[in-house]
Amino acid sequence: MPIITLTSDWGLSDHYVASVKGAILRRVPDATIIDITHLVRHFDIKHASFVLRNSFRQFPEGTIHIIGIDSIESKNHQHVVVYAEGHYFIGADNGIFSLILDGTPDKIISLEVLQDTGYYTFPSRDRFAKVACHLAEGKSIDELGSPIPALVPKSLYQPVTEGNNILGRVMYIDSYHNVFVNISEKLFRDTVQNRHFTINFRRDSYIISNIVKAYGDVPEGEMCALFASNGILQIAINQGKAASLLGLTIDYPVNVVVR
Amino acid sequence: MPIITLTSDWGLSDHYVASVKGAILRRVPDATIIDITHLVRHFDIKHASFVLRNSFRQFPEGTIHIIGIDSIESKNHQHVVVYAEGHYFIGADNGIFSLILDGTPDKIISLEVLQDTGYYTFPSRDRFAKVACHLAEGKSIDELGSPIPALVPKSLYQPVTEGNNILGRVMYIDSYHNVFVNISEKLFRDTVQNRHFTINFRRDSYIISNIVKAYGDVPEGEMCALFASNGILQIAINQGKAASLLGLTIDYPVNVVVR
Amino acid sequence: MPIITLTSDWGLSDHYVASVKGAILRRVPDATIIDITHLVRHFDIKHASFVLRNSFRQFPEGTIHIIGIDSIESKNHQHVVVYAEGHYFIGADNGIFSLILDGTPDKIISLEVLQDTGYYTFPSRDRFAKVACHLAEGKSIDELGSPIPALVPKSLYQPVTEGNNILGRVMYIDSYHNVFVNISEKLFRDTVQNRHFTINFRRDSYIISNIVKAYGDVPEGEMCALFASNGILQIAINQGKAASLLGLTIDYPVNVVVR
Repeated sequence: MPIITLTSDWGLSDHYVASVKGAILRRVPDATIIDITHLVRHFDIKHASFVLRNSFRQFPEGTIHIIGIDSIESKNHQHVVVYAEGHYFIGADNGIFSLILDGTPDKIISLEVLQDTGYYTFPSRDRFAKVACHLAEGKSIDELGSPIPALVPKSLYQPVTEGNNILGRVMYIDSYHNVFVNISEKLFRDTVQNRHFTINFRRDSYIISNIVKAYGDVPEGEMCALFASNGILQIAINQGKAASLLGLTIDYPVNVVVR
Repeated sequence: MPIITLTSDWGLSDHYVASVKGAILRRVPDATIIDITHLVRHFDIKHASFVLRNSFRQFPEGTIHIIGIDSIESKNHQHVVVYAEGHYFIGADNGIFSLILDGTPDKIISLEVLQDTGYYTFPSRDRFAKVACHLAEGKSIDELGSPIPALVPKSLYQPVTEGNNILGRVMYIDSYHNVFVNISEKLFRDTVQNRHFTINFRRDSYIISNIVKAYGDVPEGEMCALFASNGILQIAINQGKAASLLGLTIDYPVNVVVR
Repeated sequence: MPIITLTSDWGLSDHYVASVKGAILRRVPDATIIDITHLVRHFDIKHASFVLRNSFRQFPEGTIHIIGIDSIESKNHQHVVVYAEGHYFIGADNGIFSLILDGTPDKIISLEVLQDTGYYTFPSRDRFAKVACHLAEGKSIDELGSPIPALVPKSLYQPVTEGNNILGRVMYIDSYHNVFVNISEKLFRDTVQNRHFTINFRRDSYIISNIVKAYGDVPEGEMCALFASNGILQIAINQGKAASLLGLTIDYPVNVVVR
C-alpha cells in the first residue's frame, strides 16, 4: 500500500487539502495519505524544508512526498520529481529540494505529464496528484519526463568556525518556542572535543555552559541547551517558551565559545 | 474500501472529531476517513458549503460525506441522506445541501435510523456515523428512511447582469486572503466575449483590466484577477493578502464593466 | 488492521506529528493512524485527559493510544503501557492515566523496550511508536516490560454534595465555548430526583432552572443547561459563546441548588 505525504501552506480551513486527497483517492483508492503539515507560513520554503527534512526519513522507502509550497511553474521554477535516499519528492524546483536533501539526488526529472485542467494555480491537485499516483501504482519515474542535471541551488546560513569558536544562527522555532540553532551535534563535538565551552547569545547577556540530555535536567522555568531529537543544538526553557522569553528570532546569532 | 469524509465546525482541540472517527471505525474498521475541514466558522453553512462544493467531485463516486454543521434535528431541519452526482451526503437539511449541490438530487431520504444514545447534541457521532457505515457496507440507501420530494431551499447572492455589465459580490476569502467573486468563468466569457472590460471594486478605486493565468504573471505584491482552480473569478495579490490589503469582505460588490 | 491513535501537544506546524506517523508506518505499513488531537495546551494533561477520556471508548477494542504529553521519562514518571477496558495506552505515567481511566487497569507494564536513538526529548517517535507497533503486530504486552502495581494517582476536583445541593466546578471549555461542569447526569439525577432545582453560578447572578435536551430548545442567544453527549452537565448559549459571555473559566464554581 503506497504512502503519499502532503506538505503545504494551504491551511486547514479551505478546500485545498481535501481536493488533493480526493484527486489521489480517485486514482489510487487504497493510498495511505499522510499530512506532514499544511500550516507552513505562506510561501516560506525554509519552514517547509525544515519540517520535511526532519521527518521524511522516518517513512519507509518508496514513500512519495508532494510539496505544495510556492508551486506554480515558471521559467525558473520547473515542476520536477526527485528520487533521493529511496524517497520520491514532487514539487516546483524553487530551491526547496536543495534545502531538504543532502548530497546529489539519484534522479531529477522535469515533469512532462500534462495538467488535468486549464487552471495554473493548483498544480498539486491537477498535476502532482497524477504524478504521485503514477509512482504509487509502481510505474517508472522515467516515464514522467526528462532528466535534468541539477536542482536549483539554495542554502541556509551555515555555521562559521572561527578559531575554536562556532558562530551559529537560529534556524527554526517550534510551537513550544524551542529554539533550533544551525549547529549539528557532530560539528559541536568535533570542535569542542573535551574542552570547556559556553553557548552565548544576545550579546553575551545569556550564557549556558553545559549540555543536558532532557529538559527535565534543569528546574521548571530554567534555560538549557541540548541536542534535539533531530541532532541539532537546541536552546529551551523547561516547560517554558524560550524564543519569546529570551528574545530569539530566526537568524539571530548564537555562538559556541571554546576555552 | 469505502471513503467517508467529514466536514464540520468542531475545531481540532476537542473530543468531537475523534469520537466520530471511532464510531465509524468501530463498525467499519477498514473505512478510509478523510477530513474535508473541521475549521468551518461556527454555524457558518456558507463557509462549509463552499469548501465541500469545491472538493467533493475530486473523490471517487460512492464517497460518503458526513456534514456536522448546525446539525441538530428540529421540525424545520430534518436529518437526511442525499444521493447526488454519485455521492452520498448526510446531515441536517438546514439549507446546506442546496448550497452544495446543483440541480435536483437523485434521492433525498429523511432518516428514520434510531440514534445510538439519548443525547441530542452530537448526531454526527450518534446517528450520521451509523448511517455512513450502513452505506459503506454496501447496503441500500432506501433502508435508511422515507423519500422526501425536495430539500430546504437556500441560495447565495447571484450575480446580476445589467446591460453588458456583471454585478457580483465577494463569496469567499481563503487563508491566503485570495478573494473569490461569485462570477463563474462561463458567465464572464459569455458576457464579455471579445470586448474590453474592467473589473472594478471599492467604488472604482481599484480597477483591473485583464485576466491572467497565474499569480506569477504579475510582479510580487501586485494585484491581479484570474479564474481560480474552481472556475470562479478571483482577485489576488501575487504573494500578498488581497482581501485585507484591498479592503474586501464577504458580500462586498465587485463589478465587471464591459466597454 | 490495527488502529493507533495519537494525542499530543505537538501542534500541527512542526515535524513532530509526521515523524511519529513515519516511525509507525515504517514498521506497520497498514496501520490506521488516527489523530485524537495535537492541539492540547502545552503540558496540560487535564486537557489531554478530557479529550481522550471522552473519545477512546468509541474506538474498537484493541485500539492502541499513544499519549505524547509531558512524556519525558524521569524517576517519578516511568514510561508505561496500560491495558484497560480492552484498549492499550502508552505514555509517561505523570498522572494522566489516572485521569483518563476509571477503576483499576487490567495491566500496567513499566516499559523496558530500548529507545531507538540517543535523544531523550521525543519518546513518542523513539520508543512509543516501537511499542505501539509491537502491539499492533499482535505480540504480547507482557514482553514489553515488568508489571507494576499501580499508576501515579491524580484526580480532578470532585463535586461535593452538601445537604441537597451539589457544589461543582467548570472542568472543560470546548471550542464553541460550551462549559462542561464536573457533575454527571447520574449524580445530578440521584441527588435532584423529582424536586425543583436551580443551577447557579457567578455568585447567583446567573440562574438556570431547567434542563433541556438540545441547544435549539431555547431561542438563539439564550443560555441553557443540558447533559452533553458525554453525560456531563453543560452550560451553553444557543449558537453563542457561553464561557466568555458568562465569564466562566476552568475551576469556576457552579452549584445545583435543590429546593
